[in-house]
Amino acid sequence: MKIPLVEKVGKQNDEIAALNRVDLRAAGVRCLNLMGSPGCGKTLLLEKTLEALRGELSIGVITGDLTTTRDAERIARHTKAVVQINTGGGCHLEAHQVRQGIGKLDLPSLDLLVIENVGNLICPVGFDLGQDVKVGMFSVPEGEDKPAKHPQLLLQAGLLLLSKVDLMPHVPFRLDVFLADLAAIRGDLPVLALSATTGQGLGAWLAWLRAFAAGPAI
Amino acid sequence: MKIPLVEKVGKQNDEIAALNRVDLRAAGVRCLNLMGSPGCGKTLLLEKTLEALRGELSIGVITGDLTTTRDAERIARHTKAVVQINTGGGCHLEAHQVRQGIGKLDLPSLDLLVIENVGNLICPVGFDLGQDVKVGMFSVPEGEDKPAKHPQLLLQAGLLLLSKVDLMPHVPFRLDVFLADLAAIRGDLPVLALSATTGQGLGAWLAWLRAFAAGPAI
Repeated sequence: MKIPLVEKVGKQNDEIAALNRVDLRAAGVRCLNLMGSPGCGKTLLLEKTLEALRGELSIGVITGDLTTTRDAERIARHTKAVVQINTGGGCHLEAHQVRQGIGKLDLPSLDLLVIENVGNLICPVGFDLGQDVKVGMFSVPEGEDKPAKHPQLLLQAGLLLLSKVDLMPHVPFRLDVFLADLAAIRGDLPVLALSATTGQGLGAWLAWLRAFAAGPAI
Repeated sequence: MKIPLVEKVGKQNDEIAALNRVDLRAAGVRCLNLMGSPGCGKTLLLEKTLEALRGELSIGVITGDLTTTRDAERIARHTKAVVQINTGGGCHLEAHQVRQGIGKLDLPSLDLLVIENVGNLICPVGFDLGQDVKVGMFSVPEGEDKPAKHPQLLLQAGLLLLSKVDLMPHVPFRLDVFLADLAAIRGDLPVLALSATTGQGLGAWLAWLRAFAAGPAI
């Protein structure tokens, strides 16, 4: 008896992700998949980003959570192009959920689609959603050991954000350890340190986003 | 064709968890399963706890991570009864892994076993490991929306810890929202606010642990 269950699930996700990618590229929409722990600051960064790029880039957001529409409500203050996906118990977004989300957006009106994944440093990493790039986010209060503990995320990411740097004076965070571990795993991965609360580092992030939105597929 | 795969995996985990529970109770060891986000402060709290209860309670620790032995190395400064479980890509601990860990500990010498689960607010919740109680941990920098977003953890927990309260002045955390959401989901769940860094609230946590270690099965 042959039970190809896991392979089939994986293949199906990848097939749907490929469809998402085709549709996004046909509409000229660049897409990033943002992954980080619960409460690392994904939603606040998106709020500040939408505010800063208003009138310059048209940005849609698909945001995933187990339950509640709180993130979408926060995002909706800054753009109408927002979809909340509630996964129930699901610990990550899958391509078919993103496909449903894309169906609710007016793709041709967008320059950029940000998928804010479910808060989880582990499970989202293995699922292609059709994005052009995966962006990882660690926050300073999580501690300097996150790169060493989460190598898979680093191996797949095209950019790493270190958020909440305004808390650096208030927590025991060893930046030297963080950077040494990171270099040992992905020495070529760009890192942007920022604080959505104070605005520190946001300029570099916005510049990266502008280049990403304008650039070719990664 | 019938494929009872998920049911079988679940049942097997529960069966092994039951064996763990039998062995722990036979040895007079009380066991808690600590669950929280990556970097919410689980390991530092355990370090401070081991230090504070040295000579009073004999505490063993099983700590789970995707990779590295960093947490176990930190714990090992305070007790010899520590086992690191590396899950590879696994996003939570399962009962068979804890069973292997228990096998490496001298149970009769212990009063208490703390299982520090993999940093993840979602996946560990559904897996019985043989513990007497599940303890949830949210940290202040994660934001006030964690109770609303993670009801399953609250429904299963016997205690909730709110860690890193020393950061309250430095982050936009609305305690009123946190408590209102919590009350709507689990009005009877005790909450202890603490900071392992400053020691604030540690007394109440240690008192809870002493009572737990001395008390009957929950």
